Amino acid sequence: MSRITVLGIGVLGSQIAYHAAYKDFDVVAYDIDDAAVDRGRARLELLSEQYVHEVEGAGAGARKALGRVALTSDLADAVASADLVIEAAPEQLAIKRDLFARVGAMAPAHTVFATNTSTIPPSALMKSTGRPERFLALHFANLLWRHNIAEVMGTAETDPDVYTSVVRFASALGMVPVEIKKEKPGYLLNSLLIPLIKAAGELLTDEIADPSAVDDVWRIGTGASYGPFEMLDIIGLTTAHHIASHGDAKQREFARLIKERYLDKGNLGVATGEGFHVYPRTPLGT
Amino acid sequence: MSRITVLGIGVLGSQIAYHAAYKDFDVVAYDIDDAAVDRGRARLELLSEQYVHEVEGAGAGARKALGRVALTSDLADAVASADLVIEAAPEQLAIKRDLFARVGAMAPAHTVFATNTSTIPPSALMKSTGRPERFLALHFANLLWRHNIAEVMGTAETDPDVYTSVVRFASALGMVPVEIKKEKPGYLLNSLLIPLIKAAGELLTDEIADPSAVDDVWRIGTGASYGPFEMLDIIGLTTAHHIASHGDAKQREFARLIKERYLDKGNLGVATGEGFHVYPRTPLGT
Repeated sequence: MSRITVLGIGVLGSQIAYHAAYKDFDVVAYDIDDAAVDRGRARLELLSEQYVHEVEGAGAGARKALGRVALTSDLADAVASADLVIEAAPEQLAIKRDLFARVGAMAPAHTVFATNTSTIPPSALMKSTGRPERFLALHFANLLWRHNIAEVMGTAETDPDVYTSVVRFASALGMVPVEIKKEKPGYLLNSLLIPLIKAAGELLTDEIADPSAVDDVWRIGTGASYGPFEMLDIIGLTTAHHIASHGDAKQREFARLIKERYLDKGNLGVATGEGFHVYPRTPLGT
Repeated sequence: MSRITVLGIGVLGSQIAYHAAYKDFDVVAYDIDDAAVDRGRARLELLSEQYVHEVEGAGAGARKALGRVALTSDLADAVASADLVIEAAPEQLAIKRDLFARVGAMAPAHTVFATNTSTIPPSALMKSTGRPERFLALHFANLLWRHNIAEVMGTAETDPDVYTSVVRFASALGMVPVEIKKEKPGYLLNSLLIPLIKAAGELLTDEIADPSAVDDVWRIGTGASYGPFEMLDIIGLTTAHHIASHGDAKQREFARLIKERYLDKGNLGVATGEGFHVYPRTPLGT
């Protein structure tokens, strides 16, 4: 796989496209119209500057990578010679289905199709391409040059050779490929993170302990860099609220607490300098 | 509080007694007979050597600390002038109740009583002393000089001043005091750890992913030092099996897997060099 097409040049799509180019792949980045493409180009340029500062040894390579990304709003052009198409479109079933139906009709026979969806089971999308055996989920984390994991999740219909080729691609991209053997909502990271966050939320809503106590215990007791409330401050309390408000009664109580104590005061987490904690923060335990 | 009495000189009791002496408290360490006291003395001497190697700046102070621990198998002597009694006896309700009843009858009026129990709610012990308002739980982690948290948990009857004095004592001991405002089984650490371990166990029993994939995701995705299976290997698979076998149907399935794949082969975790992983281990993601 050497020719990669990324559909959607938003926050994560731009990171995938840029990083693939940085790792010497030929990349086509597609978005729906010229305005979206222009916004995508600006994102890629910002990433190039960010790599110079944050990625060891990036230097001139960070600038050069930009030259390996072709941008277009023409979908047929975008996928004409794609070995791998990675979809990073908005998280709506209808949009993704429509997009996969169109690229399925246009792409060469050998193309592999991957969705970066966080919340839609890949089996709900696999038939749209008309080639379910060449379809799977390839899920990146935000700030992928730092959190370099790529969760690879097939469906019951994914061809094992296709699966293996995508695992190999993820490695070539400098990601640690995480193989998920069966379809699992939330992949691995959220399957682990959500029960922890849920337990932490209950300690707060039940007035057992405050966020500092919980975070101190977690860091010192397990050797973690962050406690659960610090993680939520990093993820952002808007997202934390969104997840909790879709949970059970206890979690919805936690969602209300997040809204009343933090969101309504404009405290959204690290991004605004305050959430469960005030930042920058010197934890007690260090 | 300057005179501390520790009841039980086992694994954790010896750490509490030694560390309090190392931090300049006058310590009495009690155990039930001369043989138990001798074993306790040997533990304290080993700790003194361990501090020289592991605790920065310990040096001669590590040896000196031994001189501040008086050992005895006479309970009346042990508590005669105690400001704080910390119970670290075997984890059996009858033993602890009997012990608190006896020290409650012998100790001075100003004595504060603390249990280091991991699993018994302090309210089940508070009446034994005859002074429930002077009773609470003070829970240390194993290897307390490294994992320096002390969870402080009162009951509905604990006097707030007593609670505050124990929080202050924990700080003076160099612990990060973690204040738990209401009685909560499992304190904070296990309240957080068990849901995470449970979720990880399900990913394995449901054949979604193997331990390496789960641990890679957790470390890289959250910045933790260890993934959940690495934590279990550190805790030890005998303990992991014990906890899981007391859980719901899913957890009992995980307990069976631990027994069949690991315990029955003598692989108990880091202690035996192999558990979910083989040690020493170089994680993929680093």
